[in-house]
Amino acid sequence: MSKEVKLSKRSEDYSKWYNDIVEHADLAEHSAVKGCMVIKPYGYSIWEQMQQVLDKKFKETGHSNAYFPLFIPKSFFSKEAAHVDGFAKECAIVTHYRLRNDGKGGVEVDPTAKLEEELIVRPTSETIIWNTYKGWIESYRDLPILVNQWANVVRWEMRTRLFLRTTEFLWQEGHTAHATADEAIAETKQMLDVYADFAQNYLALPVLKGVKTANERFAGAIETYCIEALMQDGKALQAGTSHFLGQNFAKAFDVKFTSREGKLEHVWASSWGVSTRLMGALVMAHSDDEGLVIPPKLAPLQVVIVPIYKGQEQLDAIGKVAQQLIKELRDLNISVKFDDRDFLRPGFKFAEYEFKGVPVRVAMGARDLESGTVELARRDTKTKETVPQEGLSTRIKALLEAIQENLYQTALNRQIASTHQVDTYDEFKKALDEKGGFIYAHWDGTSETEVKIKEETKATIRCIPLDNKQEPGVCIYSGKPSAQRVVFARAY
Amino acid sequence: MSKEVKLSKRSEDYSKWYNDIVEHADLAEHSAVKGCMVIKPYGYSIWEQMQQVLDKKFKETGHSNAYFPLFIPKSFFSKEAAHVDGFAKECAIVTHYRLRNDGKGGVEVDPTAKLEEELIVRPTSETIIWNTYKGWIESYRDLPILVNQWANVVRWEMRTRLFLRTTEFLWQEGHTAHATADEAIAETKQMLDVYADFAQNYLALPVLKGVKTANERFAGAIETYCIEALMQDGKALQAGTSHFLGQNFAKAFDVKFTSREGKLEHVWASSWGVSTRLMGALVMAHSDDEGLVIPPKLAPLQVVIVPIYKGQEQLDAIGKVAQQLIKELRDLNISVKFDDRDFLRPGFKFAEYEFKGVPVRVAMGARDLESGTVELARRDTKTKETVPQEGLSTRIKALLEAIQENLYQTALNRQIASTHQVDTYDEFKKALDEKGGFIYAHWDGTSETEVKIKEETKATIRCIPLDNKQEPGVCIYSGKPSAQRVVFARAY
Repeated sequence: MSKEVKLSKRSEDYSKWYNDIVEHADLAEHSAVKGCMVIKPYGYSIWEQMQQVLDKKFKETGHSNAYFPLFIPKSFFSKEAAHVDGFAKECAIVTHYRLRNDGKGGVEVDPTAKLEEELIVRPTSETIIWNTYKGWIESYRDLPILVNQWANVVRWEMRTRLFLRTTEFLWQEGHTAHATADEAIAETKQMLDVYADFAQNYLALPVLKGVKTANERFAGAIETYCIEALMQDGKALQAGTSHFLGQNFAKAFDVKFTSREGKLEHVWASSWGVSTRLMGALVMAHSDDEGLVIPPKLAPLQVVIVPIYKGQEQLDAIGKVAQQLIKELRDLNISVKFDDRDFLRPGFKFAEYEFKGVPVRVAMGARDLESGTVELARRDTKTKETVPQEGLSTRIKALLEAIQENLYQTALNRQIASTHQVDTYDEFKKALDEKGGFIYAHWDGTSETEVKIKEETKATIRCIPLDNKQEPGVCIYSGKPSAQRVVFARAY
Repeated sequence: MSKEVKLSKRSEDYSKWYNDIVEHADLAEHSAVKGCMVIKPYGYSIWEQMQQVLDKKFKETGHSNAYFPLFIPKSFFSKEAAHVDGFAKECAIVTHYRLRNDGKGGVEVDPTAKLEEELIVRPTSETIIWNTYKGWIESYRDLPILVNQWANVVRWEMRTRLFLRTTEFLWQEGHTAHATADEAIAETKQMLDVYADFAQNYLALPVLKGVKTANERFAGAIETYCIEALMQDGKALQAGTSHFLGQNFAKAFDVKFTSREGKLEHVWASSWGVSTRLMGALVMAHSDDEGLVIPPKLAPLQVVIVPIYKGQEQLDAIGKVAQQLIKELRDLNISVKFDDRDFLRPGFKFAEYEFKGVPVRVAMGARDLESGTVELARRDTKTKETVPQEGLSTRIKALLEAIQENLYQTALNRQIASTHQVDTYDEFKKALDEKGGFIYAHWDGTSETEVKIKEETKATIRCIPLDNKQEPGVCIYSGKPSAQRVVFARAY
């Protein structure tokens, strides 16, 4: 935010408010290529924090990273029947491999350099990976394979929004191979738990864990597990998915293993992923009309120290105290910056760090030096207090933890307040329009009803919660019997 | 190496020896997509070690990571005159954005979904990044911009070799913007030093630092700096480049800033990169006829402990000693694994870890338990010694340092022995054919002579060393006067 920015208010134009924060807090911007974004250094540093935490969790659960090709031969998409319908649609297609001078100072596609088989820029990598696993797996001793890939993927999108829906995005995709269905299902659920733990304990975002309906299932999966979160505008956001793929891809790519009992069997699979979409979730979960709010555990910069001074002598004296604090904070593994840029007023700096969501601000003036105090401000509640310099680093550590906890509690309270239960279609539509949020309602279990409700209300079934209460009732749409409520919402 | 592999000998078929190691040590393999590789988990974990070290160095020198689009509009390549010739040639070109069912169970390109302007899969990102920087830079206060990107790039290659030359590869590309030429040049040289430091102190690979001739310069650069290393077969490998781009890209994309003096000026630039090619350098620099040798500082697994036992009781007793050692080593930040797989003989495990280049092997048998000793083997020299268990972790730490140092010294001695000085073209050709290596020879400074020598001998000028001795002589090819020798070699 190098220029003065007037941020839109959430209550007036939520969508513009979101875009303003993403662009002016230097998270991302639209690029010259339609639908593709530039992730700016500040935004990317938050993504790096997310990557580090997730990567550590993946490794702790036994996974290794690897890298598979960006391109997938077109024919691979036809091999798994459901997958072809889901993914072989809006893709970037490479048809040629050479440019030539056009004789007018520019370049043109060389028509003689046409590929025999077109290559698809990966929208997801099940096909190329299972084609590779065929060469890696012979016996049960080669299993399980627990591999993850950090990569860029491309799904051609007509209407895009920074982070939430872009043609190119960054993600991780785990692809595992197992000897038994039980083991693959356990893996699928384990990774869902990893995602839920990340959402709640790092993003400070409560999530529902559940399974998708057949309609919303990943193309090629037997079962899709998901975590669903609520944004401040009452819309849901799918924050991560974990798929039990059964033997579908093993059959499509002929991947078999000799079992412990000496029988030749198809391999069982899971895949799971989260993407830069989580950056959108982070922005929408906690930010306010003053700008971005970042949970301390994911903040690239957790503490900023702003000196308030006249003249070099005062600055030097403040700098001395600041250096001691910086040392102590770094020893506690807390990231901190001393902002002594002399061409900016303190008030401008305050606004900038507030806008960028730095969790804790320390202001030190000449008077503070005399009294041995500083002003400590927290981003989440925007409260300030004057506190002694003594014990400051310990106090800041506790404050960061309190902010993390407060953000989660606030989001949880918001989710609870935005969760409703309805029994009729009229109540359902009214709740959707007036309150939004998660709506628990009875559904007859058919895709037909699900599609009708979606067409009429734009609400989708976000999931059937994992720990769902079994409670007989009648479908709000068809009146047919239902064994349990499911969770509807309008979603990103 | 899950099956018994017969490794080719370096002396008999260097090229096959290289491929054997890359494939059978589980570093990488060819994929179903021509020219693209799969980087396997073990290979990728070495790349991750490289990334971590380099990323830390980039951040310590003030750089941040960001992410720019995979696709570049075709027209961007025509904007910088030299760049278009260098890069707008063998590229992957996206022409369509949708597949449709072909009515025969497969998919085909939808001809109605043709892009108005084709997109090029980035071969390098100067154009899209400088087009973005235009929006980021107004005044000298916005400078410098010190950004790096970790990404995949694609350069269509007809003849590929795993890691050394692949159509898709992984790399980092730094792109910096500066207010003055001096500052951009200092940045260019700083990053060359970062690369040289990485090569020597982590890869254990001595390198020559130099500048490229006009012929070998990056397309669009004013000056290309490089580090050049020698492989065991006497061929050179360019291991990293750092380019001073002048104002070329700023002019092509109209990027100006208001200077401190209030004048509007074009911005100065550098770019620099290293790639998964370094994996090829690592393999070829140190490995031997028994397999891969990894410098300890880049080894994903530094120490393996192999128990030699009969029955569970012995295994448990050995396991107890091993657990203590593992704890101590991890406290010293040394990675270690206890391999108690019971379906493999110790000899098989020894061969496997040797093949995979694990620097230190600890073998513990029942007799060792009685005598309080272990067998300690180092991968580089293949020597073994029986040492006391007491003080073992400290001893291993020192041993890892000794191995790192020994690998560097060995490579340095090999480089020195493979560096020759010649005064005539006959001597030059003889040295090339009989000895290979770096050949210092006089050159008249013309591209014409350089091209002729390349055509006749396949040797190129690798660089003009930065600290080059000024020494008048005559060109070995043309007999014209020369002010200094330059370094020729056949290269990868």
